[in-house]
Amino acid sequence: MPVAPTANRLRGIALDEYRLAGGFWGGLQETNSTATLRHCLEWMERLGWIANFDRTADGDTAGPRPGWQFSDSEIYKLVEALAWEHGRTGDAWANETLEALTDRIAAAQDDDGYLNTCYGHPGQADRYSDLSSGHELYCTGHLLQAAVARVRTTGEDKLVDVARRAADHVCREFGAEGRQGICGHPEIEVGLAEFGRALGEPRYLEQARRFVERRGHGTLEPVALLDASYFQDDVPVIEADAWRGHAVRALYLAAGAVDVAVDTGWTDLLRALERQWARTVERRTYLTGGMGSRHQDEGFGEDWELPPDRAYCETCAGIASNMVSWRLYLATGRVEYADLMERTFYNVIAASPSEDGRSFFYANPLHQRTAAADVKPGEVNPRAEGGVRAPWFDVSCCPTNLARTLASWQAYAAAVDGDALTLLQYAPGQIRVELDGGPLALRVDTTYPLEGTVRIEVLEAPDREVELRLRIPDWAAGAAVTGPHGRRAAEPGWASVRGVLAPGAAVVLELPMGPRLTWPDERIDAVRGCVAVERGPVVLCAETVDLPDDLPIDRLRIDTRAAPRAEGDGAVVRMTARTAPDVAEGGVPFRARPQRSGWDFPPQEVRLVPYHRWAQRGGSAMRVFLPVA
Amino acid sequence: MPVAPTANRLRGIALDEYRLAGGFWGGLQETNSTATLRHCLEWMERLGWIANFDRTADGDTAGPRPGWQFSDSEIYKLVEALAWEHGRTGDAWANETLEALTDRIAAAQDDDGYLNTCYGHPGQADRYSDLSSGHELYCTGHLLQAAVARVRTTGEDKLVDVARRAADHVCREFGAEGRQGICGHPEIEVGLAEFGRALGEPRYLEQARRFVERRGHGTLEPVALLDASYFQDDVPVIEADAWRGHAVRALYLAAGAVDVAVDTGWTDLLRALERQWARTVERRTYLTGGMGSRHQDEGFGEDWELPPDRAYCETCAGIASNMVSWRLYLATGRVEYADLMERTFYNVIAASPSEDGRSFFYANPLHQRTAAADVKPGEVNPRAEGGVRAPWFDVSCCPTNLARTLASWQAYAAAVDGDALTLLQYAPGQIRVELDGGPLALRVDTTYPLEGTVRIEVLEAPDREVELRLRIPDWAAGAAVTGPHGRRAAEPGWASVRGVLAPGAAVVLELPMGPRLTWPDERIDAVRGCVAVERGPVVLCAETVDLPDDLPIDRLRIDTRAAPRAEGDGAVVRMTARTAPDVAEGGVPFRARPQRSGWDFPPQEVRLVPYHRWAQRGGSAMRVFLPVA
Repeated sequence: MPVAPTANRLRGIALDEYRLAGGFWGGLQETNSTATLRHCLEWMERLGWIANFDRTADGDTAGPRPGWQFSDSEIYKLVEALAWEHGRTGDAWANETLEALTDRIAAAQDDDGYLNTCYGHPGQADRYSDLSSGHELYCTGHLLQAAVARVRTTGEDKLVDVARRAADHVCREFGAEGRQGICGHPEIEVGLAEFGRALGEPRYLEQARRFVERRGHGTLEPVALLDASYFQDDVPVIEADAWRGHAVRALYLAAGAVDVAVDTGWTDLLRALERQWARTVERRTYLTGGMGSRHQDEGFGEDWELPPDRAYCETCAGIASNMVSWRLYLATGRVEYADLMERTFYNVIAASPSEDGRSFFYANPLHQRTAAADVKPGEVNPRAEGGVRAPWFDVSCCPTNLARTLASWQAYAAAVDGDALTLLQYAPGQIRVELDGGPLALRVDTTYPLEGTVRIEVLEAPDREVELRLRIPDWAAGAAVTGPHGRRAAEPGWASVRGVLAPGAAVVLELPMGPRLTWPDERIDAVRGCVAVERGPVVLCAETVDLPDDLPIDRLRIDTRAAPRAEGDGAVVRMTARTAPDVAEGGVPFRARPQRSGWDFPPQEVRLVPYHRWAQRGGSAMRVFLPVA
Repeated sequence: MPVAPTANRLRGIALDEYRLAGGFWGGLQETNSTATLRHCLEWMERLGWIANFDRTADGDTAGPRPGWQFSDSEIYKLVEALAWEHGRTGDAWANETLEALTDRIAAAQDDDGYLNTCYGHPGQADRYSDLSSGHELYCTGHLLQAAVARVRTTGEDKLVDVARRAADHVCREFGAEGRQGICGHPEIEVGLAEFGRALGEPRYLEQARRFVERRGHGTLEPVALLDASYFQDDVPVIEADAWRGHAVRALYLAAGAVDVAVDTGWTDLLRALERQWARTVERRTYLTGGMGSRHQDEGFGEDWELPPDRAYCETCAGIASNMVSWRLYLATGRVEYADLMERTFYNVIAASPSEDGRSFFYANPLHQRTAAADVKPGEVNPRAEGGVRAPWFDVSCCPTNLARTLASWQAYAAAVDGDALTLLQYAPGQIRVELDGGPLALRVDTTYPLEGTVRIEVLEAPDREVELRLRIPDWAAGAAVTGPHGRRAAEPGWASVRGVLAPGAAVVLELPMGPRLTWPDERIDAVRGCVAVERGPVVLCAETVDLPDDLPIDRLRIDTRAAPRAEGDGAVVRMTARTAPDVAEGGVPFRARPQRSGWDFPPQEVRLVPYHRWAQRGGSAMRVFLPVA
């Protein structure tokens, strides 16, 4: 499992405790196995990012170096993905590839444990000479997370040894007596904390705590036009009200801070992080769960600043948000963290990869005004902002981040607490966990989120009382659970089935999957007068490819008096459009009179599709929020 | 005058043809004279930007150089402002300062005419080694504009000689046989064209034409994550549909392209630029006349992408927009160009300076969610995005641009065409121009835009028929003109008084100054359900400092059934607020039910003030667009 706090009663499950059998996430995981892992490897070989390790090992560092200063981290994230993949499936290619990469990485490590292909060697800038932008500790953090995956699936090996030497180097270099610096991009905190847990090494947690405490005192040199909030160096972690600045930085930092708070028993810090989560989710989070409202700094905006068209909602920020929510769930057992994770899984993380697992969304806007042209195959995309998935990026953090997340998806789907098993996410497969009292094994049958029925059959159970706890999502008004004691309504939150579970017994969860209208808080200026349509955990959208020819997407109106009707994994709604001249009347687009009310086109049925599938049928204009007629 | 096409019948007026007597623009011009010019000089001395010329002259260029690579251009813009100032007023300080700066600039010029303090000397990168970002030709373009101001007010002097040598260098270096490059930041085009007009030197126009023609073929190296549209190198000028990319770049280029089109008789190019203007104004321009919807690249967005909160609307883009509109007006005589100029003058350009002329807005958003903290005096601001005017910026293009524009404001207020004088902007003062048939002198009395009456008295006139043409602004439904033949209604467009005008005769223009509601085109998603209030040419806004304590600005609603009522230079409207919880109910801010309709606060009268005065009373939250109840 990726996260195993030492101080918690609640634990997440290990990958081998939940074997997926197809379904939504099983399918994405399979595509990740067969396509994305190799795709990432091929690109990073082609671009020379992996060969940077060879050149460092050979002392050949004087010439130009391909990739950004943080490109090492992409290899580490791929190694992490390979470790989970091999651990989950025993796949030999994954293991061999990991070992081959490990050899190349290990060869580049300096004698004192420092490991980076961009700094500290002949012809390069000095080690840690640019803490604001150098990303050295960031890269090391990803190496440690990769090693966590390895030690938890296979055990200690060469990769773990390399990571241990790198972590020891960081503790010496940045310890109490060392450099009093922090990294411009958080990640070392979460890496050190978890690696310390995995190896039972308290020094690593202590160093993570130091980095968390040192942050927020304005010690980082400003970068270009960005201020200290960009890298969360403006306010100490424990004093902040909400997340701000660069979204991935803010969320990686928060994840590491939760780890520190939990394992050091620092309750005030944990409470502060819970408050920050609540405030950020309430005011700075999109309907999709996406975070980051600004392109300029890939950052959070102000409260209520949630433009759908310029939503950044970086795929990595969705992954990072789930890293935080998962840790807060494990620390508190509160259902809202798992609710947000579901939202983010289906509407940010699942939106990124193409069906073939070989191209990706980097930004995930909720409104695309004009259909994008296709990306040229084999071309590195600056950042794929134009509404089309790209095979690789100049800054290519998302594909490998997605790879490691999908390879370990089931780790976030259930949790164990004493004699209770909690199902947090619903996916077909078999679960077998050790509870107080003995093993509990279940088969989960469902096509969720296509349909709302989840049938859970007991395969094996202790002969004493245990608890099966089911998450009833926050959107699921009208759910029901049928268990040994009959069918009963279930409110959003937790539904519990407690008793001696006999093999063959079944629990059936019914979630209401009818499409529903969702209204934005009126303080969100950017979507005033609009409504969205959701179906189960899935946000829907209108795509030009599904619109009748005479309904222009920039003038669509939805008739909310007609209830949306389910169709496939989407919905059908009644829409019309308002006439507007093709060009304005001249001058600026502001008029002395409001446009007249009423509709100009006969209402037509329009199909909405899951947002996570948009632009899978070619470039397309798209809207999640539909203006109300 | 700043612009004097060789091929036009229509001409703008010279500064000494229109003497302002106080009023809105006379006041701003006076503050510019007494405060802003000295302020700019002091800051650029303090920061060492002027001393860069001394170091270059002394061969002392190996060490670090203060300022960005384009800082020379700020000195040139100040020199241009000083030239206009001295030309307009005879001010001795302005002349002495200009001459002293000229000596320092001239000393830094290389023998072959190359003049730049950042490139081409010991310890610096080679000349023209970074056309994308180096800004060398951009700086030269501003030098040429400064020399235009000098030659048209004082005559040929050392500054003009320096500029001539620099222009000759550019023609040799980038001529038909020279480097086939262009500058990443347009400006050389407009500088060369006008300097050629001022000196009667056709080679400069020819070189400007070359630069315009060379653009749009993707020859500039991309910069970071920006594509070729950022510097308009994606599509040839004549083929573009609308302006795009970095707004100031796009508009400076368009201004130079109009000059080239007019003076070479290239009608197709002129028509293309008119179409681009119309399309950009109709779909990519704010109510204020501001251009530039994105912070990320200081650029235009897509059609209808006009977020009020993240509006960039750089002050320099407003100035550049007026540069283009003025040239198109002179080329075509069409009123819409002067209409947009008025909008931009009052709501972008006038918004930038503080009352004391010593701090400035760089970006001019139409919505500020939270009141900004004051800028520390003497501190260089990264870019003053936070809703507060700053004394100086890291990239400080706006203060000197404002200085040269305000110093020459009346050049854009009237035009002469044969026996006709056209008044385009209304300001108190005396005008004296030479028409076919003899001199016409007028006194203009008005407090416009405080009040809508403009009284024009004839002081001197030819004893033959002449025409006085008055612009009736596009917003001025219900205007009237009283002339020798009585009072008559005047539609937006032109009102003409033609006849033999006797000294003592008066023409009175009455413009309707009642505040009015203005509704956005419904395709502008970001302000759906909102309305703005304007009064004459002035956009109004709500500021927190004027709100009753119990009306929260993020939940304001305007009752549009109550007509806004004039008060001072603003208006009073009826507003209420909707109740919303201080924090959302938990989870993402999207709900299963719309917020109920109806108002929660008793309607109250709220004062709206001119947008150009916002944040003059300290940091303040502000809205131009008000949600409709």
